[in-house]
Amino acid sequence: MLLPGERLDDLMINELKIIQHEDEFRFSLDAVLLAHFATVKPGISAVDLGAGGGAVSLLLAARGAALVTGVEINERVAAMARRSVELNGLTKQVLIKPGDLREVAGNFSPGLCDLVVANPPYRPAGTGRINPNSGLAIARHEVKATLSDVVAAAKYLMKVRGRFALVHLPERLPEILQTMAAAGLEPKRLQLVYPKADRKAVMALVEGVKGAKPGLDVLSPLVIYQHDGAYTDTVRAYYK
Amino acid sequence: MLLPGERLDDLMINELKIIQHEDEFRFSLDAVLLAHFATVKPGISAVDLGAGGGAVSLLLAARGAALVTGVEINERVAAMARRSVELNGLTKQVLIKPGDLREVAGNFSPGLCDLVVANPPYRPAGTGRINPNSGLAIARHEVKATLSDVVAAAKYLMKVRGRFALVHLPERLPEILQTMAAAGLEPKRLQLVYPKADRKAVMALVEGVKGAKPGLDVLSPLVIYQHDGAYTDTVRAYYK
Repeated sequence: MLLPGERLDDLMINELKIIQHEDEFRFSLDAVLLAHFATVKPGISAVDLGAGGGAVSLLLAARGAALVTGVEINERVAAMARRSVELNGLTKQVLIKPGDLREVAGNFSPGLCDLVVANPPYRPAGTGRINPNSGLAIARHEVKATLSDVVAAAKYLMKVRGRFALVHLPERLPEILQTMAAAGLEPKRLQLVYPKADRKAVMALVEGVKGAKPGLDVLSPLVIYQHDGAYTDTVRAYYK
Repeated sequence: MLLPGERLDDLMINELKIIQHEDEFRFSLDAVLLAHFATVKPGISAVDLGAGGGAVSLLLAARGAALVTGVEINERVAAMARRSVELNGLTKQVLIKPGDLREVAGNFSPGLCDLVVANPPYRPAGTGRINPNSGLAIARHEVKATLSDVVAAAKYLMKVRGRFALVHLPERLPEILQTMAAAGLEPKRLQLVYPKADRKAVMALVEGVKGAKPGLDVLSPLVIYQHDGAYTDTVRAYYK
């Protein structure tokens, strides 16, 4: 099952496993928090934009989504995600489509899905050091898709009243909220993620609803570690 | 010193006192948190837009501002604030100007102050029940000044690199960040205030810097009460 450089990691829920490659972007807590933050009603259909190795797609299926389509531009990573889906016996629930999220209009019908999720590259192109490994560069910097591209793709794919859940950097929150609101994906839920209770936020989880009225709920702070360095109960609950 | 209906309350710092009237808007924790959240470097000049009874203005002076000008549209409340300033012996540091913050251009020179603070009305006009007491209505609903008016007044008054600190409702955060960014008061610091660690945020403290580049710091969550109902250490530290 595993090719050279690959390893099998545990998604810590429903005994799900995921194939990852040492040279490619590997899922991290961001993906786990996003998959648990998104509103997943039983039987919904979801699209995971920039699915990477498929961690978020698999977790959404584990949370009850009837159909999850993961779109991933890196073909090697998409193939690996597809093998992870097979390994977990989820080929009926999770489809992996290699492709560019900027081209969803050519590959999907509009307005069909209930939920779009994205764990996109966090850094604008041209900021910081771009990884010489092009797969890692695409995952971390907006080399291929920008925030606006992700929001535009989500808007295209979602039903009216559908939801778009995103994990991103707090430092870009003004731009994120503005881009979503301008696209008609009104921000309705925000949760800030803090490494410890007395530290600055390191991630922002944002959910918008297509066509909703303004009015944001800021959920309770999501703190990752207790003062003793152990995971908080909230995070531990995600690893059943 | 006190007129009928008035009472003398304690600002809990530097033995400051404040005159308040039973029929008017009285300061609450919002004002205290705003005054402590704002960046107050020694010797700065500040303007408090919608100063009410003067709580924030007095607290900024206590924190080291050399000159604080409180602008208040309700003349009775402004007169009461002025008497509070006299009572505390702060007439050289704190000026109370009765007036409409929408008319700052007629009453102030542009671009002179280091800091503008505002604890503005939280609710748009036309939402919820408007208080029949016009003073309370003006303090709680955007009957006179809207968020855009407050931001425009702040922009006019501030130096380049000056700061604008605001306390407002989390539900209006997208609009707040967007309005500030559009006016060139780039949001740089955000702190969410939670009644308890496991509850939704009830206040947002936002600071913008005129002419700064984008990039928001989300500070550690400010939690008001411990699980046992006592103030947290953070809040207790504001009441020295």
